[in-house]
Amino acid sequence: MTRYQHLANLLAERIEQGLYRHGEKLPSVRSLSQEHGVSISTVQQAYQVLESLQLITPQPRSGYFVAPQKAQPPVPPMSRPVQRPVEITQWEQVLNMLEGHHDQSVIPLSSGIPDVSQPSLKPLWRELSRVAQHNLSAILGYDELAGSLALRQQIARLMLDGGSVVNADDLVITSGSQSGMSLALLAVCQPGDIVAVESPAYYGTMQLLRGLGIKVIEIPTDPDTGISIEALELALEQWPIKGVILVPNCNNPLGFIMPDARKRAVLALAQRHDIVIFEDDVYGELATEYPRPRTIHSWDIDGRVILCSSFTKSVAPGLRVGWVAPGRYHDKLLHMKYAVIGTNVPATQLAATAFVREGHYHRHVRRMRQIYQRNREMYTCWAREYFPCGICVTRPKGGFMLWVELPEQVDMVCVAKQLCRLKIQVAPGSLFSASGKYRNCVRINCALPPNEKHRDVMQKLGEALKVAMEEVATPGVLSDS
Amino acid sequence: MTRYQHLANLLAERIEQGLYRHGEKLPSVRSLSQEHGVSISTVQQAYQVLESLQLITPQPRSGYFVAPQKAQPPVPPMSRPVQRPVEITQWEQVLNMLEGHHDQSVIPLSSGIPDVSQPSLKPLWRELSRVAQHNLSAILGYDELAGSLALRQQIARLMLDGGSVVNADDLVITSGSQSGMSLALLAVCQPGDIVAVESPAYYGTMQLLRGLGIKVIEIPTDPDTGISIEALELALEQWPIKGVILVPNCNNPLGFIMPDARKRAVLALAQRHDIVIFEDDVYGELATEYPRPRTIHSWDIDGRVILCSSFTKSVAPGLRVGWVAPGRYHDKLLHMKYAVIGTNVPATQLAATAFVREGHYHRHVRRMRQIYQRNREMYTCWAREYFPCGICVTRPKGGFMLWVELPEQVDMVCVAKQLCRLKIQVAPGSLFSASGKYRNCVRINCALPPNEKHRDVMQKLGEALKVAMEEVATPGVLSDS
Repeated sequence: MTRYQHLANLLAERIEQGLYRHGEKLPSVRSLSQEHGVSISTVQQAYQVLESLQLITPQPRSGYFVAPQKAQPPVPPMSRPVQRPVEITQWEQVLNMLEGHHDQSVIPLSSGIPDVSQPSLKPLWRELSRVAQHNLSAILGYDELAGSLALRQQIARLMLDGGSVVNADDLVITSGSQSGMSLALLAVCQPGDIVAVESPAYYGTMQLLRGLGIKVIEIPTDPDTGISIEALELALEQWPIKGVILVPNCNNPLGFIMPDARKRAVLALAQRHDIVIFEDDVYGELATEYPRPRTIHSWDIDGRVILCSSFTKSVAPGLRVGWVAPGRYHDKLLHMKYAVIGTNVPATQLAATAFVREGHYHRHVRRMRQIYQRNREMYTCWAREYFPCGICVTRPKGGFMLWVELPEQVDMVCVAKQLCRLKIQVAPGSLFSASGKYRNCVRINCALPPNEKHRDVMQKLGEALKVAMEEVATPGVLSDS
Repeated sequence: MTRYQHLANLLAERIEQGLYRHGEKLPSVRSLSQEHGVSISTVQQAYQVLESLQLITPQPRSGYFVAPQKAQPPVPPMSRPVQRPVEITQWEQVLNMLEGHHDQSVIPLSSGIPDVSQPSLKPLWRELSRVAQHNLSAILGYDELAGSLALRQQIARLMLDGGSVVNADDLVITSGSQSGMSLALLAVCQPGDIVAVESPAYYGTMQLLRGLGIKVIEIPTDPDTGISIEALELALEQWPIKGVILVPNCNNPLGFIMPDARKRAVLALAQRHDIVIFEDDVYGELATEYPRPRTIHSWDIDGRVILCSSFTKSVAPGLRVGWVAPGRYHDKLLHMKYAVIGTNVPATQLAATAFVREGHYHRHVRRMRQIYQRNREMYTCWAREYFPCGICVTRPKGGFMLWVELPEQVDMVCVAKQLCRLKIQVAPGSLFSASGKYRNCVRINCALPPNEKHRDVMQKLGEALKVAMEEVATPGVLSDS
C-alpha cells in the first residue's frame, strides 16, 4: 500500500468512528504532513482519494470538510417467493457468467471472488512453495479420507470462535463449501425430496439442488433478520421437507446476520419437525462485528445441524479447502466423500494448516473484515450516487456482497445482456430464485477494490439501469431502437 | 540408484530378453568388472541381488548360472458371478483398509498407491514450488469450471497415444478418476438404475455405485481377455441396464488388456442396446506393451463412451488431477461438476501441465512401465515360492496389481484380520464383488519396491495362507486353539 493510500484509510477510519464529525473541518494539509511525517503532496493525494470517495468536500480557501451524511437508501422489504416446491432452472445463465470470469477483459461484478491481492496472503504461498520442497511423501501420496489431521485440529480450534465445540475426528475436509454441501445433501436426501431455502438463495446451492434432483421451497426472508421462522413453520406443516439450507452469518446474497434468538428459534423448529439444518458458514468469518457471530451449529445438541464452511472466501478460492461438521451424519458423509469425490489435495491442506497455525490466518481475516466493510460502504455510496431513484440496498453485516432492488419494472436479465457488450458482468437476481423471482434485483461483488476503474463500472451500471427504466416507461423507444 | 543396483537391473533385463538363457553360465565377476568399469565388490553385490531374486544360482567353484525357468502358476479361470442385479455392501471393510494406509507401521499390500519415490518425479514438485512463487493470481483464484485450458490441451495430446482424437473443449478436468466416474454416473444414471461391471471390479467403483444408489450386475470376466461379451449380451437382454463400467486396459484387479477385437465388439454391443460405456483408463498408460493399447473411446462414433482417467497411478495421487472425455454427456457432466464438486485446485494443475509439456511425463511413465513389470515378476516369483500349492495368479499386461486365487476353502477375510496383527494389510477378493464372491482371492500391490522387507511380507502372507489351509483341512485344530 502506498503512503497516501495508507493515510487516506486512516482518515476514513477516523471519520467512520466519528472522531471527525459530519460537516466538521479537517486538519490542514500542512499539519497532517507534520503529524504523519509525510510530504505535502502525499497528504494532498490522500485528500483527493477521500474526496473521490465523497467522504470529504473541499471548500475554496477554507480547506477540507467532512461531507454531510447522506440519506441511506432503504433496505429491501421481506421477500415473498412462491410457497410451493419447484424445480430449478437457470443453469445456462450461471454457465455464461462463469465463463465470463475467465475473460480478463471482463469486470466480474457478478462473481463471488474474494480479494486475493492483499500482502497478508504472502505467507500462504510461501508455505505452499515450502511444502512442495520439503514434504514430498505427503504431497505426492494419498491424503487421509477425512482430510489432514493437523488441518482438522486447526479448524476445530477456529470453530470455537463461532461457539462450536468439536474435535478433529468430527470434521471432514472437502474441496470447498460447495462439495461439502453436496456431500451433506447426498448423505441426507434422495432425488425428489424437498429442501427449504432462504429466498433469495445463492445460485450455486440452487444448481446443486437441481443437479441432485431435489426440489426446493423458497421461504420468505428478511434482509435484516433472515428467514421467516413463521413461514418456514407453515411450510413444514404443509410439505414433507427433509431439511433447510441456511446462511445465517453474512448471508449470501443479503448480508444479514440472524440474531441469536432467531438462530435458536429455527433450531428449535428443526427439532420439533425433525428436519436437518444445512448451515453454510462460508462468509461467517468476515462479519464486521467482533467477536464473530455464533453458528446455529453451536447450539445443536442432537447432531442435526450439518455445518459447511471453507477458506474460499476468507483466504483464497485456489486452496480448495473446505470442511464439514456432519454431526450424526458423519459416517454416511464420509462414505459419500470416498464414493463421489475421493481424497483431497494434500499440498494446499498443508499450506493452509501452517497459515492458520502460525497466526497468519487471523491477521489476514482481521484485515479483510475492515477492507470489505470499507468496500461495501464505498459501493453503497456509488449505488446511491449513480443508480436511479427508488432503489433499495441491503446493509450487510459482513462479507462482500450488496443486493440492490430496483423498481419492479426493471429487467436485470436484459440489462445484464447489454452490460456484457461493455465487458461488465452482473448477477441478475433471478439466478437466486427457482421460481423466477428477483428479475429486478442485482447482486454486486464489493471485493473488487473500490478504485477509479470500478467506480467507472458502477457508473456505467447505473446508466444502464436508468436507460432500462426509461425504456420501460416509454416502450415505444425500445421497439424503435 | 546405486551402482550395483544399476548393474543388477541391466543383467536382469538381459536375462529377460533371453541374451543369457536359462541354465547358461554368466560372465565372471572379473570380466563384468572390466566391462562396466566397476569394482569387483560392486559386481558381487549385483550378483547377490539377482541371487536373492532367484534369477541366478551360484555353483561352487564354477560361478553364477541363470536359474532354470520355473513353471508359472496357472491363470485363474473366467469368473462366474451371480447373474442378477444386487446391492453393494462391504463399506466397513474398505474403510478399515483405508484407515490402515495412514499408519506408517502398516505395510499396505492392499492399497492402490503407486511408487512415488522415483527421481523422475523431481521436476513435478519443482514445478509445484515454482507455480507457488510465480503464478499467484492463478493459484489463489478460482479455476475455470472445465479445468485449466493449458492442461486440457496437454491431455488432448496425450490421449492421441490411446487413439482418441479430442480437443481441449471436449475435456473436463476432475480431481481424480473417482470423481470423474462419479460425475459420469451422476450425468447418466438415477438411483435404482442398473449398471453392469466386470467381475471382479475395483472396490472404489463398487462403493461409488452404492453411494449413488445404483444397482450392479456383475458380468463373468476372463483374466486374460476381459469381460464376457456373450454374458453381457445375455444380461442386456434380460435387464434394463443403463451402462457398463469397463477397465479394458491393465484392468484393476485382473491386469488384462482386452484385445482390440473384443473392445470393438463390446462397443458394437453397446450401440445395439443403446447403453453407455464408462471406460476407466487410469492404468492404461502403464501397459508394458509399446505403443500403449487403444481405448474403446478411440472407436466411439456417437459419444456413448465416457472416458475417465487421471495422473493418480501414472504420476502421483497427491496431484488430484484427473479428466473425463464425456462425449454426448459433456454439458450434463459439466453442470454436475459445478453442482456437486466445484472447481479444482489450480496449483497442481499448473504443475502437471508443465510436467507433461516439458517431456518429464513421458520419461517418467516409460521408467515406471519397466519398474512395474520387474516388480510384478518379482512378486509372482515370491507367490510361487511362499504361497501354498494350488494357487492361480494373473499375468498382468501392465499396472501394478496381482490377483491371486487360492483354493476354494481359504477365507481371505479371516486371513486379512490375522495379518492385521502382523501390521500387514491385504485386500480380500470379497471387496471386489457385490455378491460376496472371491473370498478365496487376494489383490496384491506390486508398486511396493521388491526389497527384503517386502519379500519378508510376502513370506509372512504365504505362511498365513498355509496355516489357513491347514486349519480348514483339520477344523479340530482350529476349535481347540
